[in-house]
Amino acid sequence: MKKIVLSLIVENTSGVLSRVAGLFSRRGYNIDSLTVGVTENPKLSRMTVVARGDSGILEQIRNQLQKLEDVREITELAPEHSVCRELVLVRVRADGSNRKEVMALTDIFRAKIVDVAPDSVLIELTGNQAKIDAFIKLLSDFNVLEFVRTGITGLSRGASAEDDFENTTHQGEE
Amino acid sequence: MKKIVLSLIVENTSGVLSRVAGLFSRRGYNIDSLTVGVTENPKLSRMTVVARGDSGILEQIRNQLQKLEDVREITELAPEHSVCRELVLVRVRADGSNRKEVMALTDIFRAKIVDVAPDSVLIELTGNQAKIDAFIKLLSDFNVLEFVRTGITGLSRGASAEDDFENTTHQGEE
Repeated sequence: MKKIVLSLIVENTSGVLSRVAGLFSRRGYNIDSLTVGVTENPKLSRMTVVARGDSGILEQIRNQLQKLEDVREITELAPEHSVCRELVLVRVRADGSNRKEVMALTDIFRAKIVDVAPDSVLIELTGNQAKIDAFIKLLSDFNVLEFVRTGITGLSRGASAEDDFENTTHQGEE
Repeated sequence: MKKIVLSLIVENTSGVLSRVAGLFSRRGYNIDSLTVGVTENPKLSRMTVVARGDSGILEQIRNQLQKLEDVREITELAPEHSVCRELVLVRVRADGSNRKEVMALTDIFRAKIVDVAPDSVLIELTGNQAKIDAFIKLLSDFNVLEFVRTGITGLSRGASAEDDFENTTHQGEE
């Protein structure tokens, strides 16, 4: 099972999302995550699709995507040549007894508390997938009431960027 | 034209995304943004759809979504009762002459530089839609090479949350 992150530039037509999604589902392929939003050109959208599967079938899907008229460009975001990020909102039960612990964990991950209710807090975190997975795993010691993840979005790195720049900033990020 | 943000809990079937997207496109409805990712339950995914249109037709779409077998729950995320966030990655041309200006703007928005190439930087920003729109607008004074937005994701606020909490944290956010 291979994981693939595809970044598509597509025309902003009403049917494009359904066509792209249909291409995966007709092969019984579940999409791990998908994000679609506007780009610098109002006629184009950018889709980021994360899928897992047999590399032969993924290659077929890629070829078929290329044949869709409203797909302009397909880039595979390989981990070593791209920056991928995800955003998560998590609501955790937190009252007097454990609010401090939840806040400490939030600080360590440089996450942000964006809403407070008497018995819960809503936390926002951005990072690569590993960081978000680790945060959610640690929070499972508390009572996670609900969470939502945007799914991965990403861009290729600059041509001559330092390969280890991301790691450097992760250690010292603000 | 009304903008609506719908949060759907759906079963993790391979066809669900294509069915939901198809429902919008058959009415010629363009989706502004869509995110779909896993939830606290591995059998369910959460989709956040932003669409714009005539409120009558949006109501029809909502009713039809409710009839789909794999849609378990539909919540409208009204601005006053929810926290909505989006993540953007922007690559801006930046060399010796304007790198400082770009960095100053990044600081003001509490954004992060996540990749540096000799002639460009890649910036990550999280916030509500208005903040992200403002940031991209200000960056247009420079040369924006490419950007990608995840699209909006959100959760309802806690039952008794202070309505103005978000504004408070925005002013003093870290």
